[in-house]
Amino acid sequence: MRKLFIAAAVLALGAGLAFSKKERPAPAPNGIELPADFADWRLISTSARSDNDTMRAILGNATAIKAAREGRLKPWPDGTVMAKVAWKRKTNEAWPPASVPGDFVQVEFMVKDSRKYAETGGWGFARWVGKELKPYGKNPDFVRECFACHLPLRNSDYVFTKPVFIPSVR
Amino acid sequence: MRKLFIAAAVLALGAGLAFSKKERPAPAPNGIELPADFADWRLISTSARSDNDTMRAILGNATAIKAAREGRLKPWPDGTVMAKVAWKRKTNEAWPPASVPGDFVQVEFMVKDSRKYAETGGWGFARWVGKELKPYGKNPDFVRECFACHLPLRNSDYVFTKPVFIPSVR
Repeated sequence: MRKLFIAAAVLALGAGLAFSKKERPAPAPNGIELPADFADWRLISTSARSDNDTMRAILGNATAIKAAREGRLKPWPDGTVMAKVAWKRKTNEAWPPASVPGDFVQVEFMVKDSRKYAETGGWGFARWVGKELKPYGKNPDFVRECFACHLPLRNSDYVFTKPVFIPSVR
Repeated sequence: MRKLFIAAAVLALGAGLAFSKKERPAPAPNGIELPADFADWRLISTSARSDNDTMRAILGNATAIKAAREGRLKPWPDGTVMAKVAWKRKTNEAWPPASVPGDFVQVEFMVKDSRKYAETGGWGFARWVGKELKPYGKNPDFVRECFACHLPLRNSDYVFTKPVFIPSVR
């Protein structure tokens, strides 16, 4: 029993340090809710931005991953949700020529619903900032800023990310 | 019927371009088989290496992800398998300060079995190179090269990767 208690305490401590579970944060000002399970989504691509010194991973829900693997990207199908997770860039002390993710910065989402979000290319945008996951934007107009940046990407359905090639084995 | 045929042809073409399914390649010279489903594993971290101009994603099987989230990394538990997928670094033409993955280079694995691989820190190593997934190494001694590079990482169970923080929401 004592052993079990110690094991549980060690597990709880580990979970607290490595992966904080928290209540669902407030929705974005346009009503989009943070998808509860996005940490379990599969990889679409990564990026490293020198202009703001961040490392990023782009994850997709099941609809997004299926579309990426089938090459259905113009347009991405309704139901697609992509998460772009950003961390500050850090040097890997064990191998200094390698940059790795450091502190968590934010997570951004693009939600495809061609009717609901027709005014912004069929995409709903949302961002939660910092470990406290504070929703970005004072009112629903915050999406103008998002869409202005994505607008030049008309030819790739307003999406910066191109899915990476990962060899698949049957 | 014609519509269905066209839809199927478009899907097949898309799949061929975006995600090539192929027969399982030859095992590594130490007998490790390429895990068939690794493209579906979840994210542990990313990295960008300036010394060889590659972008990397580190994915983990279910045992690895559970251990990462619970902070059980010293040592990682038996059954852990990590995949490090590497691509050549490419500039994102739509946003040049961003580096993104380009051509696929290789995929490497670390397989934890503290008894089977006791001579190399409890880890089995394997690497498959290029889109043809050619196993790396002429004979089982190839792991000396892998382990020599990982040896300085004694204090982190011979692992370079530190799991990233992704906020979890229940």
